[in-house]
Amino acid sequence: MSVPAKEQFSQNLMVSDTKQDTASEKIPVIARPFVSEKALKYLDIVEKFVEEECIPADPIYAQQIGDGVQARFTAHPPLMEELKKRAKELGLWNMFLPKNHFKEGAGFSNLEYGLMAEYLGKSHVASEATNCSAPDTGNMEVIAKYGTEAQKKQWLQPLLEGKIRSAFLMTEPDIASSDATNIQLRMHKEGNEWVLNGSKWWSSGTGDPRCNVYITMGKSDPNNPSPYKQQSVILVPADTPGITIHRMLSVYGYDDAPHGHGHVSFNNVRVPESCMVLGPGKGFEIIQGRLGPGRIHHAMRSIGAAEKALEYFLARINDPRKKPFGKQLYEQGVMLERVARSRIEIDAARLLVLNAAIKIDQKDAKHALKEIAEAKVLVPTMALTVIDRAVQAYGGAGVSQDTPLAEMWAHGRTMRIVDGPDEVHLVQLGRNENKRGKFLLERIQWQKKKGEEYAKRHGMTPKDVLALGRTGEQKAKL
Amino acid sequence: MSVPAKEQFSQNLMVSDTKQDTASEKIPVIARPFVSEKALKYLDIVEKFVEEECIPADPIYAQQIGDGVQARFTAHPPLMEELKKRAKELGLWNMFLPKNHFKEGAGFSNLEYGLMAEYLGKSHVASEATNCSAPDTGNMEVIAKYGTEAQKKQWLQPLLEGKIRSAFLMTEPDIASSDATNIQLRMHKEGNEWVLNGSKWWSSGTGDPRCNVYITMGKSDPNNPSPYKQQSVILVPADTPGITIHRMLSVYGYDDAPHGHGHVSFNNVRVPESCMVLGPGKGFEIIQGRLGPGRIHHAMRSIGAAEKALEYFLARINDPRKKPFGKQLYEQGVMLERVARSRIEIDAARLLVLNAAIKIDQKDAKHALKEIAEAKVLVPTMALTVIDRAVQAYGGAGVSQDTPLAEMWAHGRTMRIVDGPDEVHLVQLGRNENKRGKFLLERIQWQKKKGEEYAKRHGMTPKDVLALGRTGEQKAKL
Amino acid sequence: MSVPAKEQFSQNLMVSDTKQDTASEKIPVIARPFVSEKALKYLDIVEKFVEEECIPADPIYAQQIGDGVQARFTAHPPLMEELKKRAKELGLWNMFLPKNHFKEGAGFSNLEYGLMAEYLGKSHVASEATNCSAPDTGNMEVIAKYGTEAQKKQWLQPLLEGKIRSAFLMTEPDIASSDATNIQLRMHKEGNEWVLNGSKWWSSGTGDPRCNVYITMGKSDPNNPSPYKQQSVILVPADTPGITIHRMLSVYGYDDAPHGHGHVSFNNVRVPESCMVLGPGKGFEIIQGRLGPGRIHHAMRSIGAAEKALEYFLARINDPRKKPFGKQLYEQGVMLERVARSRIEIDAARLLVLNAAIKIDQKDAKHALKEIAEAKVLVPTMALTVIDRAVQAYGGAGVSQDTPLAEMWAHGRTMRIVDGPDEVHLVQLGRNENKRGKFLLERIQWQKKKGEEYAKRHGMTPKDVLALGRTGEQKAKL
Amino acid sequence: MSVPAKEQFSQNLMVSDTKQDTASEKIPVIARPFVSEKALKYLDIVEKFVEEECIPADPIYAQQIGDGVQARFTAHPPLMEELKKRAKELGLWNMFLPKNHFKEGAGFSNLEYGLMAEYLGKSHVASEATNCSAPDTGNMEVIAKYGTEAQKKQWLQPLLEGKIRSAFLMTEPDIASSDATNIQLRMHKEGNEWVLNGSKWWSSGTGDPRCNVYITMGKSDPNNPSPYKQQSVILVPADTPGITIHRMLSVYGYDDAPHGHGHVSFNNVRVPESCMVLGPGKGFEIIQGRLGPGRIHHAMRSIGAAEKALEYFLARINDPRKKPFGKQLYEQGVMLERVARSRIEIDAARLLVLNAAIKIDQKDAKHALKEIAEAKVLVPTMALTVIDRAVQAYGGAGVSQDTPLAEMWAHGRTMRIVDGPDEVHLVQLGRNENKRGKFLLERIQWQKKKGEEYAKRHGMTPKDVLALGRTGEQKAKL
Repeated sequence: MSVPAKEQFSQNLMVSDTKQDTASEKIPVIARPFVSEKALKYLDIVEKFVEEECIPADPIYAQQIGDGVQARFTAHPPLMEELKKRAKELGLWNMFLPKNHFKEGAGFSNLEYGLMAEYLGKSHVASEATNCSAPDTGNMEVIAKYGTEAQKKQWLQPLLEGKIRSAFLMTEPDIASSDATNIQLRMHKEGNEWVLNGSKWWSSGTGDPRCNVYITMGKSDPNNPSPYKQQSVILVPADTPGITIHRMLSVYGYDDAPHGHGHVSFNNVRVPESCMVLGPGKGFEIIQGRLGPGRIHHAMRSIGAAEKALEYFLARINDPRKKPFGKQLYEQGVMLERVARSRIEIDAARLLVLNAAIKIDQKDAKHALKEIAEAKVLVPTMALTVIDRAVQAYGGAGVSQDTPLAEMWAHGRTMRIVDGPDEVHLVQLGRNENKRGKFLLERIQWQKKKGEEYAKRHGMTPKDVLALGRTGEQKAKL
Repeated sequence: MSVPAKEQFSQNLMVSDTKQDTASEKIPVIARPFVSEKALKYLDIVEKFVEEECIPADPIYAQQIGDGVQARFTAHPPLMEELKKRAKELGLWNMFLPKNHFKEGAGFSNLEYGLMAEYLGKSHVASEATNCSAPDTGNMEVIAKYGTEAQKKQWLQPLLEGKIRSAFLMTEPDIASSDATNIQLRMHKEGNEWVLNGSKWWSSGTGDPRCNVYITMGKSDPNNPSPYKQQSVILVPADTPGITIHRMLSVYGYDDAPHGHGHVSFNNVRVPESCMVLGPGKGFEIIQGRLGPGRIHHAMRSIGAAEKALEYFLARINDPRKKPFGKQLYEQGVMLERVARSRIEIDAARLLVLNAAIKIDQKDAKHALKEIAEAKVLVPTMALTVIDRAVQAYGGAGVSQDTPLAEMWAHGRTMRIVDGPDEVHLVQLGRNENKRGKFLLERIQWQKKKGEEYAKRHGMTPKDVLALGRTGEQKAKL
Repeated sequence: MSVPAKEQFSQNLMVSDTKQDTASEKIPVIARPFVSEKALKYLDIVEKFVEEECIPADPIYAQQIGDGVQARFTAHPPLMEELKKRAKELGLWNMFLPKNHFKEGAGFSNLEYGLMAEYLGKSHVASEATNCSAPDTGNMEVIAKYGTEAQKKQWLQPLLEGKIRSAFLMTEPDIASSDATNIQLRMHKEGNEWVLNGSKWWSSGTGDPRCNVYITMGKSDPNNPSPYKQQSVILVPADTPGITIHRMLSVYGYDDAPHGHGHVSFNNVRVPESCMVLGPGKGFEIIQGRLGPGRIHHAMRSIGAAEKALEYFLARINDPRKKPFGKQLYEQGVMLERVARSRIEIDAARLLVLNAAIKIDQKDAKHALKEIAEAKVLVPTMALTVIDRAVQAYGGAGVSQDTPLAEMWAHGRTMRIVDGPDEVHLVQLGRNENKRGKFLLERIQWQKKKGEEYAKRHGMTPKDVLALGRTGEQKAKL
Repeated sequence: MSVPAKEQFSQNLMVSDTKQDTASEKIPVIARPFVSEKALKYLDIVEKFVEEECIPADPIYAQQIGDGVQARFTAHPPLMEELKKRAKELGLWNMFLPKNHFKEGAGFSNLEYGLMAEYLGKSHVASEATNCSAPDTGNMEVIAKYGTEAQKKQWLQPLLEGKIRSAFLMTEPDIASSDATNIQLRMHKEGNEWVLNGSKWWSSGTGDPRCNVYITMGKSDPNNPSPYKQQSVILVPADTPGITIHRMLSVYGYDDAPHGHGHVSFNNVRVPESCMVLGPGKGFEIIQGRLGPGRIHHAMRSIGAAEKALEYFLARINDPRKKPFGKQLYEQGVMLERVARSRIEIDAARLLVLNAAIKIDQKDAKHALKEIAEAKVLVPTMALTVIDRAVQAYGGAGVSQDTPLAEMWAHGRTMRIVDGPDEVHLVQLGRNENKRGKFLLERIQWQKKKGEEYAKRHGMTPKDVLALGRTGEQKAKL
């Protein structure tokens, strides 16, 4: 069976329905002016690759990972390399690197890649197959932006080629990592080496046998008066002695092998000072630049997951084998209402993300902090809601391995936590809005005064519509 | 006190805050390409007019309406005419008529007017002051589009000039009006007159003494085999004998005087056949064309109401007089979170409406049914949520006449009902999505089969990750 | 038409349905042991009185209040006196005074009266008709508990007889009243008189021409080091010179005439020191005792409102005249789901209130603070949700005067604010729970340690299920 | 370390807090009259056993299950037998069998066991350790109630002794199992044997090597005119040839080993006719009796899970190591509000379940269908909400194996599906309520008529408060 053309695809299946819109045709009209012809073309190629090559591969990839902890975290499924080869042939490689800042990527804007990321989010394997998967994407951005030529040669080049993988080690088990100033992995200088001691967890990607470098954040200058200058970021080869991956963390029972989320300790881990990124004390500067586009990627993949869940939902309620109480599910009132709500919520959330992506494209992520935070908060909760509705329509199949829904939900749930929990972003958004408070209070007071002038001009005394004006003496006569 | 310039305004008030963005600066970046320079300029004029002239006038206008049912429904507050004069001077008149279909308007697109409607929605008087208030807007569209020259001269001209007002009589008390085929006001022909008998309610605007014409939908051909061809729309002068406005309906206690919502009976009401619009049996055609842009107007005004509620919310939590338990409200955690959620929800909903407006602009409302329905459902619930949060922050002042919040909420609540309740739109959206169901079911099956080919190529037998393969015989040995 | 017996009632109406359960039959089984035979009997009498005499009277009472502010706030509808006479005949009078603390009432427990209050909450007039309406109930409790004999003779006696009405003046417009220590109406002593200066609002009941006494809270000792001893409560005759009711406040668009919510000023209002309740500085003690049972009353009336809304909902979806798209509403999926959710939510909330009432009965309100707060928070939001669902099923009729729903909603909305907004109660509940935090943290740690002992006994080393144990050196070999 | 007494326990830990209420002290006052002295005593023993012996054992038990599919589904952790021994010593064995129907149990009512089940729900191992775990509980009830003496001897006796385990095979993969009439596993008679052919899934417990009997529902009489008489239930020994457990189903990422959820096929599986339960065609009768108390057990265990999640939540926000932005989490506003809402929602839901249990105790489950359905729907959604709040407070630890939260959530999610999805119960509840619709519509109409009599007696014509009465002729003069 060769990869069918869209038309063949439909024909083969004798799909009774009318033609389905392609990815480029589905772009919201409001976003169209921002999408180049080239991006339109590649967007459709991405969709076709995901639907016809990646999604079918997902269960086989899962099978190639195997059984048992040790096996699963040394697995390197051959199917992945096959898909990567195919993706390169199609020109789908490193699309995430925004054209206005990096020459190394495929030449798309954040918005354009965002539209593609939606489709990548529909398959477990698609992001890695196109070399667009986290945390490599953000890591490549960091090294491309801040790395020395030597660092680029050693790590960026093989990452761009998809030959190795990487991890970003920030979160720690013993503190509240949502506030990065709390980070306490100790980095001190001995000679021309940095010596690292401490613990990290949620070190995503460390399970992969091909993960060769850990971009590690630690405290190099704990006494610096500015809490934002105590941190540094350093590149640590994964095979450095003193590192131990104690265990992998699960996400609602999923181990996400071989990628995984490691709990790692550093015991006198020594790296040469040439591994330092940008310079000591620059940790915050580096991580802040890193997070903007990554949040757009995550958000758009979540949009894609929500769309896929809705597709599964629709498939289920039209499954002729599933007729409780003599009617198919789509004939049962609540189902179509849930479908409709899902449609609305996905579409609204997508627009919020696209708007944020455009704002980043126009300048940079710093400029779009509000818009990014809005998308960061809204999208995961929306996606979880939509996925959960699909789960409920499937019943047992929904919570099990027989649909991708349960795993998508578990992954989606972490999106309310990674890169800062909802609460942190909400407080920041709230504080930002609150800056207007004083002005608004004063304007309302001004408007009231202005109203009194209107009244005067109209020969009126301002009076409440329910004015009563009853004194104690008048009351006595009632 | 003259109308202050934006700068003066801030100066006068000694607002400590930094400069506030103007309306044109606040347009989401994703919508910018669709807004002309002219619209940007007028948008700022609208904002200024609303904030500095209309909102201050709201309470005085309310006072001029007076006390007692008879007084309130004969009121014609002089302040309104003053504001209309001022609006005309500023060039703010009939902005609602989209430039691509009508020559009579101010020359804006649906999107551009939508952006303005957001600001009109912040004041009770602003829409009427700029001759952009429902139901006149939709009625003018109907007559402009379908009316004869005589009808235009008699009714459209004075409506465009703001000299008279109009009502649209569709809803009836004894049926389920959410399904317009149920409408049963009887229209029969006697000679060259149509004779009308029946009842209407929620005849909004009939209370206004200046409301001179009722655009009335009735059943002229009850035996037509198509339920969509039984209805006609006819122009009925408000002073025709046989009409009685029995009473006005309240909305959560508000009578909305002088506009009001009438409960009206028709008892042998005779109108010449020249009053028929488009021709007998064309009722559905007329109302379907009427509703698209109107829903955008309503939605954007609701967005404006939500923004105003958020402004009041912010003013309250920064009011130094309100310090429960020793802290201002903004210092109390839940408040900023609610502010932030409101910010996100408003911004997402606005993008959905703007996208729908653009889609209408690109062709027509029919083309944008899905997008309009999405906005129709999402916006009112969002606005009610945001307003209600502000009410709660104000406590007693929030539910009373001391803030505009309670009345905005009551009005907003009707938005989940007028032009079809949420449920009707959700079912239509759901059915529309459901058309994809069969295709998706087949695609999922195809993807599964395709996966089997991958497995084959990799020399594998497809197997579940939790494959057990235990027979009864094996069980016996456990 | 005489008042029909339950059986006749059904017969007259040719109700096709099977017999309906009476109020006493509907008591949840878990609450039965707490209800006396006498209460069972009177509960059914209350239900019959409400359904067959009060609810039919509601619209006529509304009509007798009249039109225009001045008329409405001097109204004393004769129908009310007729109903009060009838209620006394039936023995339904002052049921609210709990038998374990007061001899003046009808001899019921808080639980038993709570069950009755649910039915009173279904009619606008029923509470007053049975002399069980706020704020008189709480005021009578205050005077009965803390008043001198003279105070009792002057005010309690006529209140118990329903000859006069009363108001409780606590909330003030210029402060955050949710924190009562903020109250600042000034009370100072001149000779043997107290002189009052300040403003009050939300002075509910002050609109009624029969409201003769204001139980007023003010600050008599602003310099007392304890913020809980600065306040006093004093009885102020409504006709005392220096008092002005400036205006009445609306609740959404309702003025709640003749009762009403006054905005009142005190300008050198002089009252003899014999009017002081309990003694200067005792304000907090008095108001704290006042609020427990009152919250149960409010909550149970809200439960009744929710039940009534559900009844209206059910009536609507079975109305044969309302058939959108060819089907009655009950046949349309979402409706029955909403009915079912309403049923569940009402029943759960009711149990919470009944449990709180029993806890008060077992000792006093102080003892049941947690349970009362739980009911105070849960019930109004539940009732608003249920009412709003019914509104939506009715469409236009739901928001208007044609059903009691809109007014019930507006009233219900204030229940999230009066006697302290939700947020205050939630914080108190949260703090109370949080006291367990330390213990729980330690117990979890203890349990972990204990687990290590189990492991030891089983010859195991505690190990994570996803233990990996991969060192840098091992990684080098992968 | 020996098992500490409650007092020692606190002492050892130097818990600074005041004494914690025991389980019996925490029973809601409204439920107290229904709890015997014996149950109070055993309830405290259950709590102590769970907190001090079971919860500490949970992680060790998990470790004893091992790694890899084959290992995990042949595991029989020795720790479980140790705990069972201990439970028997404490008298905690078979508490689930209600005393009014079975002599074989520990002598408690459904309510009393329900209270205990809450505590069992806090530990993974506690239900099995006390021989109170599903599906054995329901299966034992079935055999005890409907089984022959031979069946009881063969299966009930060892089940009661905890020597074997059992499964209930009802759900099928190819149909909508939420409607049990769809079940199609074929049972036909050959000689004195029944021959079974078909597929089952979600056959919970089949993974356990000790699971020796499958209580299987199938279609024995497909042509019976009553769809409720086509089904039979038969006891199938797990080692019967022709049975294959193909694979185990996961719940989110959990395999629930060794218990598990099997996907099983029957290929000419032959069982003697003596295995039939109650008789051919009695399948529905059997399953209907089975589900009532089981739903109470599930619900109360879910209440316990929610309480445990709240405890973890409280522990977390008081953990001194977790201080984002310089404050502990409990000091950050939203956290205490979420704690408070959780407290309220748990308490309300518990009362609903207890009320249902009492209603079952008073007669039987059939009598309490409404109450059981209410609990079935409300509790899982409540528990999921509470657990999810705790997850969010923990961040990464919340979704991983480091807290019990993620696994509790996954298990809780299935509770919205097992024994019928929410939607089925909601429709049944809705239909049940809807029976009142006609009566209520007629009563509302009667009440309106009755009001007209009041008006007449008071010399009034019923008139709307917003009566206008304006004719076309009057309009002409405005």
